[in-house]
Formats: sequence, C-alpha cells, structure tokens
Amino acid sequence: MKITKPGQKMAEGKTKVVYATEDPNLLWLHSKDQVTALNGKKHDDFANKGALANQISTLLFQYLNDQGFQTHFVEQINATDDVVQKLTMLPVEVVVRNRAAGHFVIRFGVENLQPLNPPVQEFYYKSDQQDDPMINPSQLEALQIATPEESQAMEAQARALTKALTNLFAQSGMQLVDIKYEFGRNQQGELILGDELSPDNMRIIDQATGQSLDKDVYRHDNGDLQHGYQTVLDRLRAQLGEA
Amino acid sequence: MKITKPGQKMAEGKTKVVYATEDPNLLWLHSKDQVTALNGKKHDDFANKGALANQISTLLFQYLNDQGFQTHFVEQINATDDVVQKLTMLPVEVVVRNRAAGHFVIRFGVENLQPLNPPVQEFYYKSDQQDDPMINPSQLEALQIATPEESQAMEAQARALTKALTNLFAQSGMQLVDIKYEFGRNQQGELILGDELSPDNMRIIDQATGQSLDKDVYRHDNGDLQHGYQTVLDRLRAQLGEA
Ligand SMILES: Nc1ncnc2c1ncn2[C@@H]1O[C@H](COP(=O)(O)OP(=O)(O)OP(=O)(O)O)[C@@H](O)[C@H]1O
Ligand SMILES: Nc1ncnc2c1ncn2[C@@H]1O[C@H](COP(=O)(O)OP(=O)(O)OP(=O)(O)O)[C@@H](O)[C@H]1O
Ligand SMILES: [Mg+2]
Ligand SMILES: [Mg+2]
Repeated sequence: MKITKPGQKMAEGKTKVVYATEDPNLLWLHSKDQVTALNGKKHDDFANKGALANQISTLLFQYLNDQGFQTHFVEQINATDDVVQKLTMLPVEVVVRNRAAGHFVIRFGVENLQPLNPPVQEFYYKSDQQDDPMINPSQLEALQIATPEESQAMEAQARALTKALTNLFAQSGMQLVDIKYEFGRNQQGELILGDELSPDNMRIIDQATGQSLDKDVYRHDNGDLQHGYQTVLDRLRAQLGEA
Repeated sequence: MKITKPGQKMAEGKTKVVYATEDPNLLWLHSKDQVTALNGKKHDDFANKGALANQISTLLFQYLNDQGFQTHFVEQINATDDVVQKLTMLPVEVVVRNRAAGHFVIRFGVENLQPLNPPVQEFYYKSDQQDDPMINPSQLEALQIATPEESQAMEAQARALTKALTNLFAQSGMQLVDIKYEFGRNQQGELILGDELSPDNMRIIDQATGQSLDKDVYRHDNGDLQHGYQTVLDRLRAQLGEA
C-alpha cells in the first residue's frame, strides 16, 4: 500500500510530529523548523530547518539501508516528511564519540576534540524529569528498560553505524565528532535504528576549516545554523550522487 | 620478615594514613577517627571510629581470604592498624547495589531500598576535581584508566565479593544494601581488592529493626554512628566465632 497522506497525530516532540498512516506498521514523520538545546530549555524556529535536517536524515538512512543496516526508514515523501516503520522506542540514547566534546569534556575534564581510541560508547536514559542521566547496561537491566542482550545489540549496532557514517563524512570532507542514536523494537521484536540522523544529533566539523556544521553553533550562539546544515546536505548530495 | 612498626608516611587520605614498611611490597594502614561525607565537604571526628571501622574491615578481609578471594590483606597489627600488600590503585570505585539507595535513587528517581535484580554494578572515576563521575568501561579504556579486560575483572570480582558478603551479613541478621570497592594491581599485574571494607563504604540495615548501621546516619544526622558500627562489629564477631 502506497502511503500518500498522514493520518491521526500520534505524538509531537521537540523537532518532529508523528502521525499514524493507513498501515498500522508505518508512521509518517514530519520535521519541524524548531531547534532546541539544554533539554528544550532553549528553543527557536529557523526557516527551512526542518527541510534541511530531514533531507540530511533521509540521505543518511538511505545510505545505511543500502549498506545492509536494518533501519526504520521506508521512503521519503517530501523535504520535511518521511514514512518509517513503527517501532516501540526504548527510552535510551546511544552515543558514540570519535572525539571528546560537550558532556564528555565537562564530565571528565579532558581537552575538547581530544581523539578517543577506540571510540567511546555511552547510554543515556531519556527522562526529562531526571535530566537524561548516563546509564549502564546493568542499570538498564535492573530498571527493566533493556535486557543485557539488547544493550549489547545497541552498542554493537551503534559502533558499526558510526564506522560507516564516519567514513561517509570523511569522504565528503567532514569529521564526525560524535553521534546519538535511538533504537526501537519492530513487530518481530528486533532492535532497529529509528528517530533521525541529522546535525541536531551529531557533531560534524568541516575538515578544511574546522568550522562546526551542526547544532553546536546554536547551542553556543557562534555561527549560522542554516549555513552549516546546508553545507552538510550539499556535500552529502555530491558524495552520494543525488540531484 | 615480621612487620612490627610503620616506616615513612607515604600518603594521608580522609580516613586512613598509609606508611611504608621495611618490606617494599607491604604497606602499613592506619585508620583515623575521622568520618567524612559529601566528598569530604562534611567531616567530623568520633572517638573509637577508626578502631571500629578497621576491626570490621579486618574481619571481612580475613573472611574473604578464607573464602579463597585474593585481597591485599596480610595481617592485623592492632585495632586501628593492618599490614597489607602494596598495590598500584586504580582511580576507580566499583559499586554493587542489592537495593536502590543514595545516588541511585537521586539519579533514576526510584524508591529508596527498591530491590535490584540482578544487583546493579557501577564504576565511578575517583577525581575530586570532577566530583567522582560515573564512568563506563569504554570511557575507562579511552581515558587509559583500565583496559576492557580489567573492567570485566573488576565487575566479576565485585559481584562475587558482594554475593559472599551479602550472605555473611544475612547470617548475622543484617542486610547489605550496597557496597563500594577499590582495586589495584600487585607486583604480578593482577587486580587485587584493596582499601577497606567498613560501614564507611557500604550500607547495612538491621534486618529486625530496619535501622541504618552505617555512615548514612552521619550523612543524614539521624542516628548514632558508633552504636551502628559497634553493632556490626559485635554481630560479625559472633558469627565468625571471634573473641
Ligand atoms: N520509527 C519510530 N517509531 C516510533 N516512534 C519513533 C520512531 N522514530 C522516532 N520516534 C519517536 O518520535 C518522537 C518525536 O520525535 P522528537 O525528536 O521530536 O521528540 P523529542 O522532542 O526528542 O522528545 P522525546 O524524544 O523525548 O519524546 C520521539 O519520541 C522519537 O523517539
Ligand atoms: N593496598 C593498597 N596499596 C596502595 N594504596 C592503597 C591500598 N589500599 C588503599 N590504598 C589507598 O590509600 C589511600 C588512603 O585511604 P583513604 O581512604 O584515607 O583515602 P581517601 O580519603 O578515600 O582519598 P583517596 O582515596 O581519594 O585518595 C587511598 O588513596 C587508597 O586508595
Ligand atoms: Mg528527538
Ligand atoms: Mg577512601
């Protein structure tokens, strides 16, 4: 069945609206122009931001599907809207860091952009009330959020995904500093990559200039968010041979 | 060589003084009467506290050695002083929790004393400057604090030690809520249990009354620290058949 229009609104988050579709296994995701930081305490609208973020996400999901990864991505509808497999999301953020930045620098007092070999992998518990604390697999098990096997599967997938994306970005003249993933269970109980893959959820640096091409310029008010996102989109399009 | 007196003072921490001995592989540990909380921000002296804490620690180390665990403990000199193997300590605290308490309750917003099945295991990075943040094995590896094999060995030892101690306390009418360990490398590069095992580093509850028998009464100013420590010492002595 070809999905042509969104159904009932199921949920609205900080950057996306989730709609049902005629197919109970599929969702319609719409990306908004809102950008947020500090767990939503800072938020603003930027013209075209939803389209930029979503088009980058779409390209990356298509690339990963082509590389044989299982993801929620099904098809692109337009610049801001995609159809995806419906997942039962785990309230977990899975972070992989090629270099130190952000929270990691603050937590451990190390130098910004210090290389991390091998890349660091972390879990965070998605809970606005608890301010998204770092969590480990034994805590995830005791709190019945994820089994040890699921934690292991998320770590392995996140590491493999990050290798693929780090290579793709490097080929496009960009350095992937860190990235956040969200996983969910599909109908078969398999853990699948969901949510989005945009500069909202990763740190990317221009290899030539060292410039931030991600949400950090918004977090720190020190650059042009749309320009960064447009650069990422243009380079990925050039690399992946898209229109 | 029988050690009869402390040598040069090597270090002084919040609760213990570390002296060299004539044997370069052995240290002399002296327990002070100081008790601290909030990473040392709160501190007081209690008469007899060093003797109580050290005698409990000595009994527990002797018990673990008898059970076949490798620990730093060599011999007791007197109530406040022990001779131990010199280790190169890792700046890591290894916590095992049978029930939720303290940091865990605050971090995850769960109920105090909620049972955790299986017990939760956590690492913390010992760094006063960074306020002892939680850390995971991939971070320990990237920061060159512990290899993945060492993290795994610490987790396995901490879980096995906690099972043994939980049983011992249960036989003595006490519930072990949680416990903190420190490990170090010996001359052979093996990871050995070091530091101390006292109510300063664990939460213990009287099975009959639900009363706290550990440092929590000092943290929260709601009980008699010496009475709790004395109760723990008396019960362990009765259980282990000591004078
Ligand atoms: N394939 C999917 N199936 C079901 N839900 C999904 C899927 N992909 C993403 N989601 C969820 O869609 C919701 C809306 O996304 P958005 O990023 O706007 O939320 P958010 O503001 O980050 O808030 P939160 O993620 O904490 O709910 C998120 O909860 C996300 O986990
Ligand atoms: N077997 C051992 N070999 C070498 N050092 C040890 C051994 N056992 C314990 N230590 C170290 O002795 C020091 C003194 O103990 P104490 O508990 O007073 O320190 P502290 O106040 O907790 O401060 P810190 O542990 O942060 O140095 C600690 O650093 C501890 O790691
Ligand atoms: Mg989100
Ligand atoms: Mg100590």
